[in-house]
Amino acid sequence: MSLIQPRTLKGFRDYLPEAMIPREQLIATAQQVYRSYGFSPIDTPALEYLEILTGKGSDETDRQLYKFQDHGGRDVGLRFDLTVPLARFAAQHVPKLGTPFKRYHIASVWRGENTQRGRYREFMQCDFDTIGTKSVAADIETGLVIHDLFQTIGFSKFTIRINNRMVLNGLLDKLGLASKSTEVLRALDKLGKIGRDKVAEEMTATAGATQEQAEQVLKLSDLAGSNAEILAQLAPLVSGSEIGEEGVSRLNEVLAGIAAAGVEEARIQVDVSIARGLDYYTGVIFETFLDDLPTIGSVCSGGRYDNLAGLFTKQELPGIGASLGLDRLLAAMEELEMLAKVRTPAPVFIPYFDGDRLGAYLKLAARIRGAGIGVEVYPDPKKLGQQLKYADSRGFSVAVIAGANEFAAETVQLKNLQSGESEEVSLAEGPNTLIARIRSILSIG
Amino acid sequence: MSLIQPRTLKGFRDYLPEAMIPREQLIATAQQVYRSYGFSPIDTPALEYLEILTGKGSDETDRQLYKFQDHGGRDVGLRFDLTVPLARFAAQHVPKLGTPFKRYHIASVWRGENTQRGRYREFMQCDFDTIGTKSVAADIETGLVIHDLFQTIGFSKFTIRINNRMVLNGLLDKLGLASKSTEVLRALDKLGKIGRDKVAEEMTATAGATQEQAEQVLKLSDLAGSNAEILAQLAPLVSGSEIGEEGVSRLNEVLAGIAAAGVEEARIQVDVSIARGLDYYTGVIFETFLDDLPTIGSVCSGGRYDNLAGLFTKQELPGIGASLGLDRLLAAMEELEMLAKVRTPAPVFIPYFDGDRLGAYLKLAARIRGAGIGVEVYPDPKKLGQQLKYADSRGFSVAVIAGANEFAAETVQLKNLQSGESEEVSLAEGPNTLIARIRSILSIG
Repeated sequence: MSLIQPRTLKGFRDYLPEAMIPREQLIATAQQVYRSYGFSPIDTPALEYLEILTGKGSDETDRQLYKFQDHGGRDVGLRFDLTVPLARFAAQHVPKLGTPFKRYHIASVWRGENTQRGRYREFMQCDFDTIGTKSVAADIETGLVIHDLFQTIGFSKFTIRINNRMVLNGLLDKLGLASKSTEVLRALDKLGKIGRDKVAEEMTATAGATQEQAEQVLKLSDLAGSNAEILAQLAPLVSGSEIGEEGVSRLNEVLAGIAAAGVEEARIQVDVSIARGLDYYTGVIFETFLDDLPTIGSVCSGGRYDNLAGLFTKQELPGIGASLGLDRLLAAMEELEMLAKVRTPAPVFIPYFDGDRLGAYLKLAARIRGAGIGVEVYPDPKKLGQQLKYADSRGFSVAVIAGANEFAAETVQLKNLQSGESEEVSLAEGPNTLIARIRSILSIG
Repeated sequence: MSLIQPRTLKGFRDYLPEAMIPREQLIATAQQVYRSYGFSPIDTPALEYLEILTGKGSDETDRQLYKFQDHGGRDVGLRFDLTVPLARFAAQHVPKLGTPFKRYHIASVWRGENTQRGRYREFMQCDFDTIGTKSVAADIETGLVIHDLFQTIGFSKFTIRINNRMVLNGLLDKLGLASKSTEVLRALDKLGKIGRDKVAEEMTATAGATQEQAEQVLKLSDLAGSNAEILAQLAPLVSGSEIGEEGVSRLNEVLAGIAAAGVEEARIQVDVSIARGLDYYTGVIFETFLDDLPTIGSVCSGGRYDNLAGLFTKQELPGIGASLGLDRLLAAMEELEMLAKVRTPAPVFIPYFDGDRLGAYLKLAARIRGAGIGVEVYPDPKKLGQQLKYADSRGFSVAVIAGANEFAAETVQLKNLQSGESEEVSLAEGPNTLIARIRSILSIG
């Protein structure tokens, strides 16, 4: 029989241990932070009725959908994000679960993307949302969750940029450009790339803005200084527009709330130029940048929306949420050398050195494991050098080595695999001394 | 515009918080135990080339496969288990990663099953395997992992049944029935249902066994007593067959190793009647039963195999592994009332009582959270009774309540939501007293 070539589909990938270990850690950190604010986990099926998935998506997501007929002839598709399933879920279950409904959802999504842009066709999303309240308290909390997330992951230098769509809408309203907001904001989004003059030209061409109107919009990009200074400069630009004034007022409340919870001011930066797409968001907007790697783009983004599930229910469900870009963040952490190069999640290695002593090695391993420290026992009584080479290649931290001499003397050799140093540790009075020495080498309490 | 009906596909389900919270806990426990033995996480794509998936599966799994053509016209399918992807992964990566390769994989699989049997079409598997060694040390370790898994989950009464296919093969070899092992074992598997005489009849009819041969096989079911007694009775039945004697010898070694690691003897039971399918396994076999709910069947099963990836590579990859039946175990834990009925992972609730004090509530929440205790702040300043009703419905443990009087006196009311008891706690000297009282109510260190 000829062999089948072992391979993955284009745009898909295996996660090997050295990629999967930090990914699992990151997921666990996100779960912990989300839970600490009372967000509950949910899960939804990977497959949904096609009509659910195509209802809201753009033409682009519709094109990228993995869709087919199932065994019962139903048209089905693989979810392409976690927002559409949330909308369907909320329409179905929130009437029973009640509001506020706070959920997180960490799961894979699939898109038949063009892989030439370096995109994968399967990736993980890591979303949290609060459904059923328009309160500014939920806006503040979203900022706090993002802050705690990055702090807990281990970043000290990151910036959460914040804006409110009402500010932009208020300004356009005041300028008589409300009906052309899509075109104006699309032009404004290009400011960094094409410069002020070209943006003004585009606003004139696509939105019919006058030179004066374009200048007024572009004043947004002149705002500078501390958050308080920016907000002070922003106020006159929107004064007289009810929605604009409310936007500024809510920005002030969000900043005050985040500060009250003890967040350093440097972590939050008002940035009136961010709009995050043109239709979905209606209130506060967040983007998060790593100060040491800003070019990678926002690694956690989100905002407030008025009506999550309008395609599925007449019940109006306002909400706010954000999504951690798990794969992008892992790529950034690798570039910043924040990921340890280990291919084992157990730090302690016990060579199977003396072929007749398997029981003794297993007992020793069980005792160390009983103290909460992971241990791998090599399964075959090969040469010690070969076993230690394996331990090095996998990134174990310490080896606990015992042969005939050590068993006779009731000792072990404890080898620090990073430094290469060895010490003899007695087992005569039980494993406590050994465990304390291992903890010390691993720098755990 | 008419509404789209929000619904899930037949055979699929949403996981609401009260189902998802224990599921996540169970996954975290499995991860922790697997890691503590040096197993590393991996992940593989949900979608694979169809030829990979249909290569090894049975006719039944082929029929149940979700398969379609992707955007590039490739024939693809959704994985129906984690073993076929492991075989493909091992053929592709183990030459580089080296052996022993110990991995765990916790992920969803899809099967277009008949839902009338109460089966779901999407469910999670939770597998661990050691690839690249035939050592009995890996057999022992598999038993230890299963043991630690159930102990860590919180079971005190469970039984790991153990057998070795070599014992069965040796016996059949000795009886001259080796070429009919499939038919003989299929008949033996029915012993509990149809009784001794009918099994003997079937062995005669389908395997051409003589009455005497059938009697010899059925002697297996007469073995009783302690593990040592069963093995002592087993030895003469297989003596003279090299493979049978090796099977008994390895069973002895596995039992000795598991005992050396400190496992209570009552947790392991030799059961020579288990065969776990007919072709795949070649050595030790494990099944795990809950003593208080044996009828639910085995909740963790596995065993040793000779050649994992023969369809994909000429490299012979022996291994051993087992799979935790996550959904079946959760169903059992629910029936045994081992699951707490909570719909929030944060134990502490802070009502937004005084509309002007949002900052103070957020600060208080941040301080409690800083001590590692999850807190939810209600987002809207509604009536206190309404907020406490919400807290009850979600299963919060304690509420920290503060209104104008409490703020003036620098105190809070701490309410135990289970007992209904309240106490006043001072904040005059910081939050430490409050945190200590909360810890005491939650019964955490």
